[in-house]
Amino acid sequence: MEAYQLTATEALTKLKDGSLTVEEYARSLLARIEERDAAVQAWAYLDPDYVIEQAKQLDSIPPEERGPLHGVAVAVKDIMYTKDMPTQHNSPIYEGDEPKLDAASIITLRHAGALILGKSTTTEFASITTGPKTKNPHDVTRTPGGSSSGSAAAVGDFQAPIGLGTQTGGSTIRPGSFNGIYAFKPTWNSISREGLKVYSLILDTIGFFSRSVDDLQLIADVFELEDDVPPPREFSIKGSKFAVLKTMIWPQAGPGTIAALEAGAKLLRDHGAEVEEIELPPEFDKLPEWHSIVLRTDGRPTFLSEYRIAKDKLAPMLVDHVENESKVSRAAQLEAFDKIASLRPKIDEIASKYAAILTPSVVDEAPAGTETTGSPVFNAIWTALHTPVTSIPGFKGENGLPVGLSLVAPRYHDRHLLEVSRAVGEIFEAEGGWKRQVYH
Amino acid sequence: MEAYQLTATEALTKLKDGSLTVEEYARSLLARIEERDAAVQAWAYLDPDYVIEQAKQLDSIPPEERGPLHGVAVAVKDIMYTKDMPTQHNSPIYEGDEPKLDAASIITLRHAGALILGKSTTTEFASITTGPKTKNPHDVTRTPGGSSSGSAAAVGDFQAPIGLGTQTGGSTIRPGSFNGIYAFKPTWNSISREGLKVYSLILDTIGFFSRSVDDLQLIADVFELEDDVPPPREFSIKGSKFAVLKTMIWPQAGPGTIAALEAGAKLLRDHGAEVEEIELPPEFDKLPEWHSIVLRTDGRPTFLSEYRIAKDKLAPMLVDHVENESKVSRAAQLEAFDKIASLRPKIDEIASKYAAILTPSVVDEAPAGTETTGSPVFNAIWTALHTPVTSIPGFKGENGLPVGLSLVAPRYHDRHLLEVSRAVGEIFEAEGGWKRQVYH
Repeated sequence: MEAYQLTATEALTKLKDGSLTVEEYARSLLARIEERDAAVQAWAYLDPDYVIEQAKQLDSIPPEERGPLHGVAVAVKDIMYTKDMPTQHNSPIYEGDEPKLDAASIITLRHAGALILGKSTTTEFASITTGPKTKNPHDVTRTPGGSSSGSAAAVGDFQAPIGLGTQTGGSTIRPGSFNGIYAFKPTWNSISREGLKVYSLILDTIGFFSRSVDDLQLIADVFELEDDVPPPREFSIKGSKFAVLKTMIWPQAGPGTIAALEAGAKLLRDHGAEVEEIELPPEFDKLPEWHSIVLRTDGRPTFLSEYRIAKDKLAPMLVDHVENESKVSRAAQLEAFDKIASLRPKIDEIASKYAAILTPSVVDEAPAGTETTGSPVFNAIWTALHTPVTSIPGFKGENGLPVGLSLVAPRYHDRHLLEVSRAVGEIFEAEGGWKRQVYH
Repeated sequence: MEAYQLTATEALTKLKDGSLTVEEYARSLLARIEERDAAVQAWAYLDPDYVIEQAKQLDSIPPEERGPLHGVAVAVKDIMYTKDMPTQHNSPIYEGDEPKLDAASIITLRHAGALILGKSTTTEFASITTGPKTKNPHDVTRTPGGSSSGSAAAVGDFQAPIGLGTQTGGSTIRPGSFNGIYAFKPTWNSISREGLKVYSLILDTIGFFSRSVDDLQLIADVFELEDDVPPPREFSIKGSKFAVLKTMIWPQAGPGTIAALEAGAKLLRDHGAEVEEIELPPEFDKLPEWHSIVLRTDGRPTFLSEYRIAKDKLAPMLVDHVENESKVSRAAQLEAFDKIASLRPKIDEIASKYAAILTPSVVDEAPAGTETTGSPVFNAIWTALHTPVTSIPGFKGENGLPVGLSLVAPRYHDRHLLEVSRAVGEIFEAEGGWKRQVYH
């Protein structure tokens, strides 16, 4: 197996036992990127010489001083500040802009020894659903999803083992599903969002992509995610209890998601879990609408500065936000903000009765075309509720493209959710019907 | 009157009618700063030559292209990124650091024509209560308060007409009171906090200092603060109804604040207002504790990156946050977060019955010494509740130092609150007993 195909955990083993240097690893990934970049176009900025320079620097660190992510390559969404690379937000306003600043998460990752490969593509300010240049590696005529398009496509295409994303609506879980990889949106504010371009303070959440749950555990360790009660090491599906939740969005589900949810529930049952179909209480009915109101009204102060300096270079939807084109009153804004807040402890209570809630990640497999990045409707409710969510790959749609399913746990049960996700992922990946491939 | 003594509104009039150039104005302020800097030490960074260069640049703009704040000088708290000046957060970790990035608020202010004078002092990361070098201009043996120490002292000492601060506990309202000036904490998230160092996402709020309410109105215009119902231009104290609220913190009030609150209520009554003393319902009792829990637990992810790279250079309190030294459980953290959220619509409802709630800004006048910046206890509850707050000067403590009182309105009643503050400020400044002086 070529080094670029390794998960972060596998690469770390080889980097630790001396069978792989960071430079060799970086060269393998760079060769993979060179092979595939014309087709997938996952990168907004990547300087191969600088990657090698950083890799050599990491190799020069004595083994006893190396960090827990020593040499692990990371794709960074281009709304996250990096002091040594441009940060351009896919906005003409910030073309070529290079603030000398690392986001807090980048500081922590670098300190742990991560190798920052480059900046991955995003939709404009991670805020709209018209896409960047990036293609879905599984079918380059289709979208990789968004707004964390590049990070998800890079991880799905073996160009990086770990990708950094963000989610305000469905910008991590949706591209995770479309690219056949694991995606993880931790509990809101459990990891610093300092140095990530703001869309909505109460919604924006950092997210991660990988091809294994072990890799997400590495990330969770580095960022010190901690539950009140550490979960047992090996979660057993057998004897556990899952909820299946179609949500108020279900009428929008396509055949791929309908089949995946049915298959996922059946697989859990087949492996000895009790699976109970639940519904959200009626007080959750307006959650999608409230999420949308918060998004639009938070966008009003958020994009005022760009609106002032270059309204003509700002996406029409963001101009609408600033101008409050939908005429949302402050009273309606506060009602949405407060009602969502009131539902958070309620979803925690519901979710706490189960190992996890199994629920759709997407409307369906990645839609045709690369103009729009698809619908985030199944994700937005969980973003608003602040719960941790993973997307587990393993299923496929009518066109053979990957379809994932989400697992949801109560807030600050991130480590629990990852343990459950590992066990569920093993089953879904083995028996769900979709297999990851390396394309050439 | 020297130009440096002008409020922003007064300076704008002269800048518009041609009787003052930005360069002349800047030179007057720089001379004032030169006169007083050794005593007050409000600045973390100030380059007089660069200020003049910027002023000349502003003067060169044709009158018809000038912005609404053309030439208005602003002191910027040194946790706000400015692309042309260092941003050091009063942290040895960031000594000399100069990211090439403007905070969103700085972009908006520059676009409106503001002249950024320099970076004003702050406590470390605006997060602790041990102070910077800055002294209270009214008594240089005393603290100016914090964490927005420099901006408040600069405005109080006529070194700048407008100061930018932030408030997570009481970092705007408290120094406003200690320096005998107006302070304004708008509704949380009504102005973008992008590019301000994070302490707590749900608490951090940008704030403003001035020596007139008209100046705060200028700021509110530039940032497009907007109530659902625009308030009438001239608020009449006569016939209006105010609440006086001592809060659960009252046992900590010192003689200066006790006298000020009594005098303030009496002045409002004397001018024809109905003044009703109210109490918060018992469900608000734990609000100070919940605020403290949110602060500490939000500090955990916030300072992880600095902890990792330079724990020895981080204030012990912030190390404690990261290490969760007080052992707050996730359950307790979420309870605090959710209970505060549940109180926000309730305080809105209470406050909506009055023109404003009159409540203490501080425990008392600025305490002796400059080691600590004083207590934020009277402010923290309003920061948590997201309501707009102004501090109105006009009273004095037992040592003759200024004491302010806070006015509070429901969320997104910022423009209403400013109109009320103007009317109340006229009375308190004229009859409260404390007079602003220019020290030499």
